[in-house]
Amino acid sequence: MAFFEVSSAKKTTDLKSEYDVIIIGGGPAGITASIYAIQAGLEPLVIEKALEGGQMNNTDKIENWPGFSSISGVDLSEKMAEHAQDHNVKITNAEVVDVKPGKMKTVILDNGKEIKARVLIIATGSNPKKLGVPGEEKYSGKGISYCATCDGHFFRDKHVAVVGGGNSALDEALYLAKIVKKITVVQNLPDLTADKMLQKRIRETGITDFIYNTIVKEVKGNDKLDKLLLKNVKTDEETELDVDGAFVFIGMNPNTKFLKEKVELNDYGYIITNDHCETNIKGIYSVGDVREKEVRQIVTAAADGAIALLDASKRYFQ
Amino acid sequence: MAFFEVSSAKKTTDLKSEYDVIIIGGGPAGITASIYAIQAGLEPLVIEKALEGGQMNNTDKIENWPGFSSISGVDLSEKMAEHAQDHNVKITNAEVVDVKPGKMKTVILDNGKEIKARVLIIATGSNPKKLGVPGEEKYSGKGISYCATCDGHFFRDKHVAVVGGGNSALDEALYLAKIVKKITVVQNLPDLTADKMLQKRIRETGITDFIYNTIVKEVKGNDKLDKLLLKNVKTDEETELDVDGAFVFIGMNPNTKFLKEKVELNDYGYIITNDHCETNIKGIYSVGDVREKEVRQIVTAAADGAIALLDASKRYFQ
Repeated sequence: MAFFEVSSAKKTTDLKSEYDVIIIGGGPAGITASIYAIQAGLEPLVIEKALEGGQMNNTDKIENWPGFSSISGVDLSEKMAEHAQDHNVKITNAEVVDVKPGKMKTVILDNGKEIKARVLIIATGSNPKKLGVPGEEKYSGKGISYCATCDGHFFRDKHVAVVGGGNSALDEALYLAKIVKKITVVQNLPDLTADKMLQKRIRETGITDFIYNTIVKEVKGNDKLDKLLLKNVKTDEETELDVDGAFVFIGMNPNTKFLKEKVELNDYGYIITNDHCETNIKGIYSVGDVREKEVRQIVTAAADGAIALLDASKRYFQ
Repeated sequence: MAFFEVSSAKKTTDLKSEYDVIIIGGGPAGITASIYAIQAGLEPLVIEKALEGGQMNNTDKIENWPGFSSISGVDLSEKMAEHAQDHNVKITNAEVVDVKPGKMKTVILDNGKEIKARVLIIATGSNPKKLGVPGEEKYSGKGISYCATCDGHFFRDKHVAVVGGGNSALDEALYLAKIVKKITVVQNLPDLTADKMLQKRIRETGITDFIYNTIVKEVKGNDKLDKLLLKNVKTDEETELDVDGAFVFIGMNPNTKFLKEKVELNDYGYIITNDHCETNIKGIYSVGDVREKEVRQIVTAAADGAIALLDASKRYFQ
């Protein structure tokens, strides 16, 4: 997490006790919802606990947000937040610790403050599970990635490791196989756990090899990652694997803990919604990566924000 | 339609006979699909019959594409097309007149050229609906317009009618308000249906009046349109409205004629797809405004492009 300072404009001291729409999370989904709220004549509040832009801040270069051929995640995050603020969206830095449903929804901040709104939009995203090993943080965005569709094209004709052996790991490996020169799958178990069909397809790429019973012990490099220190969990043998990058797919943590299961979640903790991004609780929407869905991209998160807000505007404010 | 010249880079003479993905239409949906194709290691061809950016070119100011607080439709169109071209997307100017399904899809251009691809993405958007009344065709371009940003400047300090009361009608009326002397909004329903914010802004122009429950029955004039024959649908009363021009914004026609019903359409001519934007024909996708869906925004069109391409990449290229 990059260092950030809470600007005075974003302190919680000048918040009103009520808004039309409270949006929890200031990533692309939440920011887009806030822009659409303003256009619909509604007063939104965006509550972001860390940095506006969310996971975009952990992305070195973004090349799939149409209109910017290549932009850093930090810069796109800033541009989106500025866009919202130019249109008079109030963004505040605070953490939501609880939510009370009802016709008026109540959001409770970490400082005890309570704020109400007719509509609540949950846009808290999800975080990739980390390896939790030395060097991982240092080389994050410098060889370590948690998203093949975001970063795969930066490794054209390179050798990359894919850490993980489940469905999402192999899905992402298949995506990478059309781009990179060689893939080494590093799996902590004796076998892959992905669907057989996916296993068959990844083997058929002809550029993938597999290391089983093995964990990553350390990420090494200079300016950029250049090797992984691996450890066989059966033999305790340690080896080094020279790679240009490592894609880690060992699961995601959707940020739903604060909800304490007050809206319906799936088995993995993602929020279940209908096509309009509304949860099982009327007036509570969920958008972006925290929502149960198949494609998790910046542009699909932003689309969720528009869809939810337009639905909420029509359903609860006309 | 604005005048434009086909740059030599966009002529059809240097096209290959086969691409991985052919994308028909260069609006935000098609352009986003093309960017995702490149990132997935596929070779796309975008075929655009007029201007990249599609309907965005008819939009004065765009303020809901996150990252640009306020940008003209023409500028955003250019930025998106440049983005795709920076990433080596081939864009060509031609019209598709027919499509042949099959394992390899064939697209036939207006010059007779045939091009094949494993996957076809239809991103042709939709065009404004006509009134269908006497005089409309005669005075089209002589007082009748369907695009304020194209033709508004011909009516400087004039009195114009805006036919329609939805978001796009009021959007265009707001554009006109900066140019014309007076606007009369003619709406067939008892009230406007546009967002409250737009309604507020159009009322604040101070030069707009509103006629409700009223349709246009005939367009009259001499060399140019000079009056509309109106009919109140509740009282059947007919009146004449003296105007210098009329801007019609009463809905859209999806551009699906060239498909000759080879993919499933709904009653309004929009293409029916599943959640992955795939039509009833395997390997033919549809994205953006031409697709049957509820929310038609730039950001939802772009999201469609990403969703379709990622699905196609997984399903047909692994």
